[in-house]
Amino acid sequence: MSPALDGLAKALGYRFADPRLLEAAVTHRSAGSHNNERLEFLGDAVLGHVVAEWLYKAFPAATEGQLSRLRATLVKRETLADIARGLTLGDYLRLGSGELKSGGFRRDSILADALEAILGGILLDGGFTSCHDCIHRLFAPRFESLSPVDELKDPKTRLQEYLQSHKLALPIYAMKTVSGKAHHQRFEVECRVEGLDKAVTGNGSSRRKAKQEAADNMLEQLGVDG
Amino acid sequence: MSPALDGLAKALGYRFADPRLLEAAVTHRSAGSHNNERLEFLGDAVLGHVVAEWLYKAFPAATEGQLSRLRATLVKRETLADIARGLTLGDYLRLGSGELKSGGFRRDSILADALEAILGGILLDGGFTSCHDCIHRLFAPRFESLSPVDELKDPKTRLQEYLQSHKLALPIYAMKTVSGKAHHQRFEVECRVEGLDKAVTGNGSSRRKAKQEAADNMLEQLGVDG
Repeated sequence: MSPALDGLAKALGYRFADPRLLEAAVTHRSAGSHNNERLEFLGDAVLGHVVAEWLYKAFPAATEGQLSRLRATLVKRETLADIARGLTLGDYLRLGSGELKSGGFRRDSILADALEAILGGILLDGGFTSCHDCIHRLFAPRFESLSPVDELKDPKTRLQEYLQSHKLALPIYAMKTVSGKAHHQRFEVECRVEGLDKAVTGNGSSRRKAKQEAADNMLEQLGVDG
Repeated sequence: MSPALDGLAKALGYRFADPRLLEAAVTHRSAGSHNNERLEFLGDAVLGHVVAEWLYKAFPAATEGQLSRLRATLVKRETLADIARGLTLGDYLRLGSGELKSGGFRRDSILADALEAILGGILLDGGFTSCHDCIHRLFAPRFESLSPVDELKDPKTRLQEYLQSHKLALPIYAMKTVSGKAHHQRFEVECRVEGLDKAVTGNGSSRRKAKQEAADNMLEQLGVDG
């Protein structure tokens, strides 16, 4: 490896068997054809997968919409650029003269793309487990500082808070039907809000689940990002 | 496993250690709270990664834009729904009564989501390698029938074809600068099209690469999906 990239490999906690992959990963398209664009495509994809699986396992009660939003927070350009800065990645970038003059090594997009390209390079160089582990190392502080408190509140709580904040009546839940044999019952609950011309139902294998689903449906009816 | 799902497991070529994952994967949200929405999020992510890596390795000359478009073709809803139909997945779907009446088991979106959820289920059940292998099995026929001929034509060829089809003059390439020492030279080539008020340059470590980049930049200038 060119000695210049040794520091970056150390910061990453990953030593490349094929250092040309790391060289390509830090090379912006402005600096030549052996650049990071293809690696960025790959890195973006593996990052999306690893973060999705991590969130899926860490937040077993989160809905798919909540998981999507948490992931978007973790992999957005600003977050990636911050992580890249923590690695002093800007010092290692290879940029064309135009990008150099305009301070490309400080730009969020260029830093974020290079970080993704590095992850793609690790995937090719060391395989999925190496890449997975590196992503976990790099993103752990962000992951731990996710504040899923609001994000993961259950639908009933969020509906109540929404209605209160809009000075609306509290929701009324009413059992509509119970079907099925004992231990395999299905419950259907209606949720209404006085003053709003809306009524929705929810189903579930328990009263509680049916209520939560009804609240979730009401949030959707109200156009609340749920 | 409920015997009903045995056939599906056979078609998939994957036997679930925890059959509840497969049950959840075929359960639409209309049929209850133990449904496939979270698994679909996970499956979508792992599918994106596996297909990206597959394309990356299969098409070493493809640009990142070309890889993106090839992936979009492979993972779009219609393709997933077709693959799902090949597995007769519609026969195994668990739908709420409303969706049943309206023929939800035939709808592209419901079939595609369930297929993604199954992939997410396999990822959780058997790990990445099992999921990777299943994706390769299911998508191999589509992958082989990708017709990347046009997609992966080099930029000079595509530019020439575009200009001809629009009855425009052929491009003129001119060497602008050569810099650097022998064996480390950089070439800059200009590309112009008579009658169009556009001139762009391209750089590269060889004349050929610089011309290709110039052609690529001209395609971009012309707004051609390149």
